[in-house]
This record gives sequence, C-alpha cells and structure tokens, in this order.
Amino acid sequence: MPRNVRLREGALVRWAACVEYDGSAYHGWQSQPHTASVQDTLEAALSRLAATPIRTVCSGRTDTGVHAQGQIVHFDTDVQRSERAWLLGTNRYLPDDVALQWVMPISTDFHARFGAIAREYRYWILDRTAPSALWRNRAYHSHHRLDEGAMHEAAQHLLGYHDFSAFRAAACQAKTPWRELTRCDVVRRGDWVRLEVHANAFLHHMVRNIVGSLLPIGRGQYDSEWIAQLLAEGDRRRADMTAPAQGLSLRRVYYPPEFELPAPALDDDGW
Amino acid sequence: MPRNVRLREGALVRWAACVEYDGSAYHGWQSQPHTASVQDTLEAALSRLAATPIRTVCSGRTDTGVHAQGQIVHFDTDVQRSERAWLLGTNRYLPDDVALQWVMPISTDFHARFGAIAREYRYWILDRTAPSALWRNRAYHSHHRLDEGAMHEAAQHLLGYHDFSAFRAAACQAKTPWRELTRCDVVRRGDWVRLEVHANAFLHHMVRNIVGSLLPIGRGQYDSEWIAQLLAEGDRRRADMTAPAQGLSLRRVYYPPEFELPAPALDDDGW
Repeated sequence: MPRNVRLREGALVRWAACVEYDGSAYHGWQSQPHTASVQDTLEAALSRLAATPIRTVCSGRTDTGVHAQGQIVHFDTDVQRSERAWLLGTNRYLPDDVALQWVMPISTDFHARFGAIAREYRYWILDRTAPSALWRNRAYHSHHRLDEGAMHEAAQHLLGYHDFSAFRAAACQAKTPWRELTRCDVVRRGDWVRLEVHANAFLHHMVRNIVGSLLPIGRGQYDSEWIAQLLAEGDRRRADMTAPAQGLSLRRVYYPPEFELPAPALDDDGW
Repeated sequence: MPRNVRLREGALVRWAACVEYDGSAYHGWQSQPHTASVQDTLEAALSRLAATPIRTVCSGRTDTGVHAQGQIVHFDTDVQRSERAWLLGTNRYLPDDVALQWVMPISTDFHARFGAIAREYRYWILDRTAPSALWRNRAYHSHHRLDEGAMHEAAQHLLGYHDFSAFRAAACQAKTPWRELTRCDVVRRGDWVRLEVHANAFLHHMVRNIVGSLLPIGRGQYDSEWIAQLLAEGDRRRADMTAPAQGLSLRRVYYPPEFELPAPALDDDGW
C-alpha cells in the first residue's frame, strides 16, 4: 500500500483495480439500460460484496466486443475490506468472462480517467485462408496476405501530435480531435499480424479506424503515403473502414509512477 | 497433392483434413444422440457441401471441453471438389468454434486413426491468485504457486514404454494399457505452467490423470518419486485426480512422412 493512504474507521477510501474481460458478450464497458455492460456487471459484484451500491470510474470506455487485459477503475467506499477480500470476493461474484486482477487502496488524488497519462491497445489480425476456431473472438480474420512492412511504414506517418479527425467516429464526444500517438508498430509472427498502439488518449473508434486504413495498404491497394494524406485531409466519412471489434484489446493504462500501480500480468508478452 | 493419388471421374477418393476446434460447447469429439459433438457438427457441414452423407474417421476422440488445433480426420467420397472448395465450403457451413485448416486428397493407405504414429497434447495451467477472463476456457486456474521444476522432474519417470493403468479412466476401452511416452515436459513462463506430452497413443483421460498427479507434486504434497510409485502400482482408483478438461488441447498428430501432411499452423509455438 502506498504510504500516502491511511485506512481510518468509517472514512471514505478510494480503491484502484485492474479488470480483465472478454468483451464478446457485452455491449461495451459503459452502463446502459436493457443490455449487458462490463461496468454494470462489475458494479453488481462489487456492490454485492460491499452490501451497498458501488459505482466505478474507468480509464476509458471500450466498445461492444472489445476486450481488456488492463482496464483500470477506481471506486470510493467506506466499506472496509482487505485488498485480498475485495479481489477474491468480487471475483467470486463475477461471471467468468470478467475478472479483477488486483485491487489496492489509493490516494484520492488518483483518478482512473483523468489521471491516465497513456493507453496501449493491441489489434490482432489472423492472415491465412482458414479461420481459427480458438481465436475467433480475439482476432480479425483477413483472407488476404498482408504486407505488414508496408503497414508498419504507413503507421509511422501517424506518430506525433495530430488532429485525428480522419480516424474519429461520427459519434465521438471528445472535446478535441488532437491526440499524441507515441508508438504504432505492426509486426508479424507466422500467420499473425499484430498492431500495437500507444497514445496519450484515443478518440472513439480511433484504433479500429487506423487498422481499417492500414488493411488496404497491407493488401497493396494504396501505398503507405496514403495514410498521411488521410490524416492531413481529416475527412471523417470513413466509417466503413472501421475494423471489427473482436481483434482489439485494451492492454495497459499508464499513470504517474507515484501511484505505484502494479503492471498487468500480460499473457501475450512473448513477442 | 501426393503423386500416389489420382482423381478419376466417379471414383471413390480418400481425403485427409485438419480440424481446429474450441471444445467448450461440445460433448467431445464422438457422435452421440441428443448432444452436440464435434464429429456430428463437422459431418453435417461436409455432407451439406457434398449434398450426400459423409462420415469421418478421426485420429483419436477428445472429451467434453477438450480443444484441438491439429485433429486429423479422413473421409471417403466420390463427390468431386477441389481442395479449396472443400476447405472454404465446409468452413462456410461450420459454426465458428470448429474450423478446417486444410483438406487434401490422400492415398487409401492412409487411416487417420490406425495410421497415426504419435500424438502431442498440451495442458495449460494458470498459476496465480486472479483467474483470467480471456483464458477461462483454455486453462486450468490453480490458486497454488506450483513448483514446475518438481513437476518436470516427476514427469520424467513416465518416459518410456509402460503399463499406464494408474492413469487410465475406468471407462477406457483400449485393449492394452501399454503406451510409449516419448516426451513429458513441464515449463513455466510467468504465471503460466505448460505440460507438453508426446506418446504413440493415449488411454482415456491419460493426460488429464497425469496432470492431476503432477499438481500435488507441484504443490509440495508429494515428492517427485511418488509418481514412479503410482505408475508401478497401476491402481486405477484415482478418478478424483483427473485435471479439468479445458486446459487440454490436442496439438498435433504425426503420420509417416510419405503422406506429406502439412504441419498445423500452431499459434502457441512461441515458447
């Protein structure tokens, strides 16, 4: 526990938690009437354990079908439980497609959304004739053989601080389309092509729209300069190029080091 | 296509195919009345494409909840389709948790079950406090920290040609309990412990019973010699030690090289 947090009898304490989920069965993160959301599912389990309603704030919403290994939330409560009790108890009440990875008390200076300094997403593409039964909900199946080198080269045009309107969903509610992209790597291993993208924050559908524009470059329809042109033109009428949700996963959210959040246990770290 | 196969008008041709499946929703490989099996599902898709009933022979049955990346089948038919038509057409009719990986015409000397010379399975254990939402159907979650070195050492006692009655299900119908185990490796990467086992053939529940006996060794309840004693005693009354199905996957089946079967595209080859 960080030294700046003290647990006092009856006092409101802020907790941070890391949530892994398989988004396949959910209409995204955000609580909505009449549909299953990850937020509602998590809050129901936390509230059941606490025997009082608990509301969470997340680092950033994910869409229907998008996964997370390292979604971060915070919540405030005067209910006293140990870190272990929150972790094991909440997981007992959660369905098995949502699982807390850790829980820790944290300073009230911490804010899961406004305190995040960077986010990292991965997008997986399976690039062969036959689809995969075991990865059907985790990757986009592309029948075309992709030129991952051209995709990577194109992705480098997006690095830096830009107006990302070209890669923004029409429904995006962000106040500004300016974001800073610090990494956008496309690599291949066997039949798998993986995009890893790192930015201070993302617009709605931004990663999936970037992937949607890299795919025709990978198929040779456009050269890698084309994406620089898209970025410069800032034309939003490209919703048909949003890559499918199931390939996308929120891998990690970064906060200032003084909060001492554990790194997520990432299963795909091998390459 | 191997040179020993000729496609003649109206002649019966034998085809070999590789099947990947997520076993979570199936009552195992084998066709059964009133429950979903992988075999029935595959045969329904093949028969629909061929517009005539097609029956398959597999390399070896898998149990309820067990997965396969490299299950091999053969079937005979006089319906003429190209390799590509069988592959794409059958996959179009299959649900997305079963997918053909390749299809090829093959000599009638080939037999998916009797011709197999070795099988390879993997068993995955996730070894940490929090469960994984994304891997819930692919690994067994062990809350105890396992000593994978002790497990590996113990597993080496099983190598060679032995009577594996101690690791055989009561319901096993094999004519003999003798099998030759040629590899049994236990390795760790981070929170993951993986068993990889290689034998000429396996008895019913054999891999899961071996894992079930390695787990208490990993937890320090027994030393690694204990498994040698179990093997020697050959006592079958150990059904309570069968490790859960979802961690198990049939990774690859080996045949004589003259059949020129493609190697499966394995996604977990990285370690």
